[in-house]
Amino acid sequence: MTESLLDRRARLMGPNIPTFYRHPVHIVKGQGVWLWDAGGKRYLDCYNNVPHVGHCHPRVVQAICEQAATLNTHTRYLHDLVLDYIERLTDKLGHGISQAIMVCTGSEANDIALRMAQAITGKTGIIATDATYHGNTTAVSQLSARKPPIGGRWPNVRLVPAPDSLRAPDPTGAIFAAHVEKAALDLEAAGFGLSGMLFCPMFANEGLPTLPRGFMDATVQVIRKHGGIVISDEVQPGFGRAGSHFWGHDKMGFAPDVVTMGKPMANGHPVGAVATRPDIMAAFRNSFSYFNTFGGNAVSSAAALAVLDVIADEGLQENAARVSAHVLERMRALSHPLLADVRANGMFFGAEFVTDADHTPATAFVGNLVEAMVDKGFILNRIGRAQNTLKIRPPLPFSIENADMLMDAMEAALRETPVTA
Amino acid sequence: MTESLLDRRARLMGPNIPTFYRHPVHIVKGQGVWLWDAGGKRYLDCYNNVPHVGHCHPRVVQAICEQAATLNTHTRYLHDLVLDYIERLTDKLGHGISQAIMVCTGSEANDIALRMAQAITGKTGIIATDATYHGNTTAVSQLSARKPPIGGRWPNVRLVPAPDSLRAPDPTGAIFAAHVEKAALDLEAAGFGLSGMLFCPMFANEGLPTLPRGFMDATVQVIRKHGGIVISDEVQPGFGRAGSHFWGHDKMGFAPDVVTMGKPMANGHPVGAVATRPDIMAAFRNSFSYFNTFGGNAVSSAAALAVLDVIADEGLQENAARVSAHVLERMRALSHPLLADVRANGMFFGAEFVTDADHTPATAFVGNLVEAMVDKGFILNRIGRAQNTLKIRPPLPFSIENADMLMDAMEAALRETPVTA
Repeated sequence: MTESLLDRRARLMGPNIPTFYRHPVHIVKGQGVWLWDAGGKRYLDCYNNVPHVGHCHPRVVQAICEQAATLNTHTRYLHDLVLDYIERLTDKLGHGISQAIMVCTGSEANDIALRMAQAITGKTGIIATDATYHGNTTAVSQLSARKPPIGGRWPNVRLVPAPDSLRAPDPTGAIFAAHVEKAALDLEAAGFGLSGMLFCPMFANEGLPTLPRGFMDATVQVIRKHGGIVISDEVQPGFGRAGSHFWGHDKMGFAPDVVTMGKPMANGHPVGAVATRPDIMAAFRNSFSYFNTFGGNAVSSAAALAVLDVIADEGLQENAARVSAHVLERMRALSHPLLADVRANGMFFGAEFVTDADHTPATAFVGNLVEAMVDKGFILNRIGRAQNTLKIRPPLPFSIENADMLMDAMEAALRETPVTA
Repeated sequence: MTESLLDRRARLMGPNIPTFYRHPVHIVKGQGVWLWDAGGKRYLDCYNNVPHVGHCHPRVVQAICEQAATLNTHTRYLHDLVLDYIERLTDKLGHGISQAIMVCTGSEANDIALRMAQAITGKTGIIATDATYHGNTTAVSQLSARKPPIGGRWPNVRLVPAPDSLRAPDPTGAIFAAHVEKAALDLEAAGFGLSGMLFCPMFANEGLPTLPRGFMDATVQVIRKHGGIVISDEVQPGFGRAGSHFWGHDKMGFAPDVVTMGKPMANGHPVGAVATRPDIMAAFRNSFSYFNTFGGNAVSSAAALAVLDVIADEGLQENAARVSAHVLERMRALSHPLLADVRANGMFFGAEFVTDADHTPATAFVGNLVEAMVDKGFILNRIGRAQNTLKIRPPLPFSIENADMLMDAMEAALRETPVTA
């Protein structure tokens, strides 16, 4: 090749296009929990949540193929599949949530959720955490802690300190609730009022802290007291990944007003959704014109239906719970001087490394550890404010055997990776 | 059925969900330019631009199926297809535009385009027309004239009077440019400055006015003089629909700085894109963190590549030009007391009806005409500020024979529809 793929990307996509790893992998094939690169090397996928029921699951592929060959139109015509899907989806949701809007991405879902909060409350103030990411639209990226937007963050946004079970234990959630209350009062004093709070019930991007069921109770009470609504971003915890429950909010034991979904919904087909109660839906629908051409199209609905079928028929939520317990047990048995904490939340795992008793993040070490694991054929990455927590979030069919392969390799990588960094 | 599809939609999707027609059609199958409803009735599709190369085109379906069965991952791993697509796409674009970001919807593309304008200019003022629609995100819907957003329109948005070739002839575009200049000065006086103007080069939602090549020259000059960039929304005109040219901006003869795309790109697979020059891409990439999980995934890229192949191999742009001339000739031969104007822009047609010499819109009549055509098995609709212009925008394989079927039926419907309204 006269021009490498990286050079070609820079030429066609521009600068600062994120890739994973020092030597980005060139993946050409996927099947179940396995990926293959262009050189034929096989990787165990311990990272990707988009191929939720496994890469290229034949039932999802078949659903897409059959419907794509039959009809693919928008919801301005009547069609059964989008209704079948919303019915199946809302059957999995409680708390009076019985309606949904289908969109194409989790970002679009969260962008709507913010407007739902405005419509039902008449207020515009919004709270998120200071170590989060909820999507890429102009409005939703205002909630991202990553980079302050041009012109500064909108004045109606407040970012509160994210939970951190290692550095700032908060067993009842009272500290977090106090931060949220301060932000709500601040928004009221500034004249915006509180429309709601948007958060991931797993706090996945925040580093997957270990939080007890009930942790959000005080916070939810504060949000409601100030007239706001509770928006649960289930892009990461939802669809059975949480293991013990189908949704992260049910695992945490709180009732959301709005639930947003994205990545895993259709195993990679671009599908997102926002589900809510009829009162909030009516407020949104009466305040904003909204139509999404591709949202809920027949093929997207068929793909999303197939994913629900596979989760149920293959017992993937139960598998997540079973494998979660096994991985956590093996992670707890790890011994390493920099390992400060291991965390599991269903089929989502974190292992945090620090350099000293003050919990100084071992960011460089974890970077090297990730590279070592990729070399060994294991796709994973890192999370958290300081990127010093290993992030392990495999497709749901990840088995006990896969878990043992991963943990055996990690034990070796921990022995081999220098602790100097 | 104990519950009609409409009742079920209201229960599962909420109120104010747009449908087409007094008796919404329940479409179950599509092939080429044909649609079938649940009762087996066949319709000629004279309306849908999403199935750009024809409903369920076998080459697009095959591309989707093969890639969905092989691999569907995001662009944080290296993959050839997204690069192959951007290369093919930008090869069709001139004006120094050589880079693109793949997204899932035209809304996402326009949402990015607004931020590109901010990034390259350092300003936030933005101009659109007062009868337009560019998408559904919080930011982009600020440019929609349809319904003022909660809390009022953002102060950095200016909507200028849309071109109207029937009521306000402006053969050189000088009047339109003067409106834009006034808006730019206003934005500067308000302290926002001008970041750019976003418009459809066909002004499709505005009613598809008949505008000469060069109409936008004065406006483009004004935008540049005030330091803004020119964003061409090619969701409707692009990909050969304009007939004489592949893009609407080339048909109009101006050089855009940013080009946005959506609906037709992948024949219904959720794909959008924003293309620009390297200087603007770098400004955006250095100012905003942006990653789109589904954008440019392997399946979306394969579908979009197949669409480009089909357009070329089946000569669909040339077909659009040929059929356009034929339909326009037949529309000009129509005789009806309320018919004020017929307009064609490639495979996109308007026929405007008015009740008097003051051009009072014959909104109700056109509503009845649309219903009569649907009854006869022709899917079409209406556009424009007053919804008194027939909107005919078929998939590109629409043939001369299809056009004659349409025009024969329209002649009959015009004879049969009462003029009382």
